Amino acid sequence: MTTTSPLLTDLYELTMAAAYFKEGIQAPATFSLYARRHPLRGFFVFSGLEAILTFLEKFRFASQEIDYLRRTRLFTEDFLRHLADLRFQGDVWAMPEGSLFFADEPIIEVSAPLIQAQLLETYLINAAGFSSLIATKAARCVHAARGRGLMDFSLRRDQGADAGLIAARACYLAGFDTTSNVLAGKEFGIPLSGTMAHSFVLAFAREIDAFRAYARSFPQRTTLLIDTYDTLQGARHAVQVAGEMRQRGEALQAVRLDSGDLIDLSRQVRAILDQGGFEGVKILASGGLDEHGLAAIMAQEAPIDAFGVGTKIGVSADAPFLDMVYKMVCFDGRPVCKHSPGKATLAGEKQVYRHLDPEGRYQEDVIAARREQVPGAIPLLQPVMQAGRRLHPPDELDQLRQAFRANFARLPDAFKALTQAPPFPVTLGPGLQAQQPVLP
Amino acid sequence: MTTTSPLLTDLYELTMAAAYFKEGIQAPATFSLYARRHPLRGFFVFSGLEAILTFLEKFRFASQEIDYLRRTRLFTEDFLRHLADLRFQGDVWAMPEGSLFFADEPIIEVSAPLIQAQLLETYLINAAGFSSLIATKAARCVHAARGRGLMDFSLRRDQGADAGLIAARACYLAGFDTTSNVLAGKEFGIPLSGTMAHSFVLAFAREIDAFRAYARSFPQRTTLLIDTYDTLQGARHAVQVAGEMRQRGEALQAVRLDSGDLIDLSRQVRAILDQGGFEGVKILASGGLDEHGLAAIMAQEAPIDAFGVGTKIGVSADAPFLDMVYKMVCFDGRPVCKHSPGKATLAGEKQVYRHLDPEGRYQEDVIAARREQVPGAIPLLQPVMQAGRRLHPPDELDQLRQAFRANFARLPDAFKALTQAPPFPVTLGPGLQAQQPVLP
Repeated sequence: MTTTSPLLTDLYELTMAAAYFKEGIQAPATFSLYARRHPLRGFFVFSGLEAILTFLEKFRFASQEIDYLRRTRLFTEDFLRHLADLRFQGDVWAMPEGSLFFADEPIIEVSAPLIQAQLLETYLINAAGFSSLIATKAARCVHAARGRGLMDFSLRRDQGADAGLIAARACYLAGFDTTSNVLAGKEFGIPLSGTMAHSFVLAFAREIDAFRAYARSFPQRTTLLIDTYDTLQGARHAVQVAGEMRQRGEALQAVRLDSGDLIDLSRQVRAILDQGGFEGVKILASGGLDEHGLAAIMAQEAPIDAFGVGTKIGVSADAPFLDMVYKMVCFDGRPVCKHSPGKATLAGEKQVYRHLDPEGRYQEDVIAARREQVPGAIPLLQPVMQAGRRLHPPDELDQLRQAFRANFARLPDAFKALTQAPPFPVTLGPGLQAQQPVLP
Repeated sequence: MTTTSPLLTDLYELTMAAAYFKEGIQAPATFSLYARRHPLRGFFVFSGLEAILTFLEKFRFASQEIDYLRRTRLFTEDFLRHLADLRFQGDVWAMPEGSLFFADEPIIEVSAPLIQAQLLETYLINAAGFSSLIATKAARCVHAARGRGLMDFSLRRDQGADAGLIAARACYLAGFDTTSNVLAGKEFGIPLSGTMAHSFVLAFAREIDAFRAYARSFPQRTTLLIDTYDTLQGARHAVQVAGEMRQRGEALQAVRLDSGDLIDLSRQVRAILDQGGFEGVKILASGGLDEHGLAAIMAQEAPIDAFGVGTKIGVSADAPFLDMVYKMVCFDGRPVCKHSPGKATLAGEKQVYRHLDPEGRYQEDVIAARREQVPGAIPLLQPVMQAGRRLHPPDELDQLRQAFRANFARLPDAFKALTQAPPFPVTLGPGLQAQQPVLP
């Protein structure tokens, strides 16, 4: 589906590789992929590993890609031949998808000959960064919705086709129930949901004609959009059609609100439905919702059964990027790091350990040296690729979703606060501290 | 490159189509694609038409796509057969890519049998919305940079692979000079640029060794990243390497700053370069820049020759989505619209006319009925597809870029203000007003 071209990279990855090649620098390097602190996010949810492992397995420059690089006149024939033969042969440690992680904790570490490891930088940041961004946003929505249904309606506002697929998958991983994105349903097996657009109502002379027509086509799965003209009148039309369906042995599933004051309208519509004898018809709501909107609706106990969330989730509107970086931490056996102000890196190969409290809740993390022991804590990074080969078959998305649900339940609620959550405690292991280079 | 699957759509487009099919509703409809007002944007730049026309030309459900739809158990065999045979046979009017447009002005109008026109909604909004979002953001940067060079460095932070390609193209269309995205270079012929990463410097024992190695590989195209350890010391190392290059008959092209106070550092680095006899070595800067950062740097007259902009441009961080919509405005010969509060639509097929002042500058737009005449004004919507066939071959990206540059020069500077720009005057033609339905 998604491109796996190794040209999906910044030019400098290739020019640096060319310089390494010319200089004969082939020593092994380790790079850490991690996120820097984000002021609006207390926790992050890791997503995107599966796409990355597929990319690494298929990593290969096609002949027309080599031809293009030749046409740039930047590279020698020797180097182009090297690229044409290049396969990823490194080792990869990673947290499982659906893991919760915090700032500065590596979620992936890649060890490979320098050129191979370097060439992955741009793609890894892009793939893990965006997918984790959306999984994180979605998890915040899941927390705010307190068990009410959540439907991903974001596709039209997502930043490209790819983004739509990745967002649908990340939302489902983090606990959404369905997506409207049909291609994501096909590619990832995510359950689909959908209702109708205002244009459907407009295509009929009267609103009730549109409702009746839809019910004829989908007698078991009809949700009526009731706000095209007047929401309360729409609700009364829905009651009428629901009555007609009931006489045929069918059942109207739901009505949907998409504009206006959702809290107030949902109460009035609930009353109309109940008075009509349709306590079982659900109310769906959509329209500019994010975790804060969901929390406000839940705080008012509005009678809304499920939410369609789109725009603000699919682009993570309040925080549309993570400051994710991929930094060399080890080269030719020595720990290395850069010292730019405010952008320091932790040198050396690492492991992330998580302490649980006696109730099994997440208590504290320790970023340690890879070989450091932290008694009683759980190591989160696992070997997933060795010498370029995957060590395990892909996980089913539903398994990852269940794993995330279990992980999320272990994170104490304080750290899930939508605003001003306290920082989750993360310390550095003494072994890691000992391997940091002394600053000049 | 990018997916052209017709499953890249919301489920409801297909369920509505199924209902239309069952009801025998085949009448022609016209849909308008337009953006609603955005508080942070005075003007928009249209981009994405080429991808849309390709999508429409190739619109076809593959057999495995039909099989997937069958497995959802939502659709009848009759309808699935209809989909399998479906091709886009409609007419499309559109503004040229690179056009400036304003809220409520249709940029595309599609007229086709209702099912065909409806099925396009999600993709059209996604494709035109994101590409125009980035072209708009990029144009604001071009305005702020006052002629200094601009390089798209956004790929790693873009929301997926697709987003990276679309962003690179939209930035170039709007006046950027280069991209770091190699695949975008290959796909769209955009000139590439790139420097080096901090990891390159770290791969050598000393910074100057890294600089020398890079210069050996790229004697004509070396830009040195000087902030890995200490920026001013890095500048002195660059002077030393530039001197060595000069002795070999080569020339150091530039140095790059990527952290710290760019205004202050650029002055100090300029002084070091100049004192070293390298007035011709350029200074590039990057690091969290957007149009406001560029404007601040330009206001201080910092000696920076070109800017690498990434993160905040590639996701349009301050405004990560446009409120773009695709609304039915005409059905079976009658103008239609929805009346939801705050979301009203202008009924009927339209034309957008632009008045120029005597100096050729944009003065006022009129949204008119399609067949309405507005003497002395330029019609912006042009027929681009008839009965499903393109009327013109694709434009070259460089032509579109030149056209945008000419368009942008015609927009008076007041409307380009980065904050609180006055609204560009847009009125409704009397013919359009006359065809609006009377509200109940």
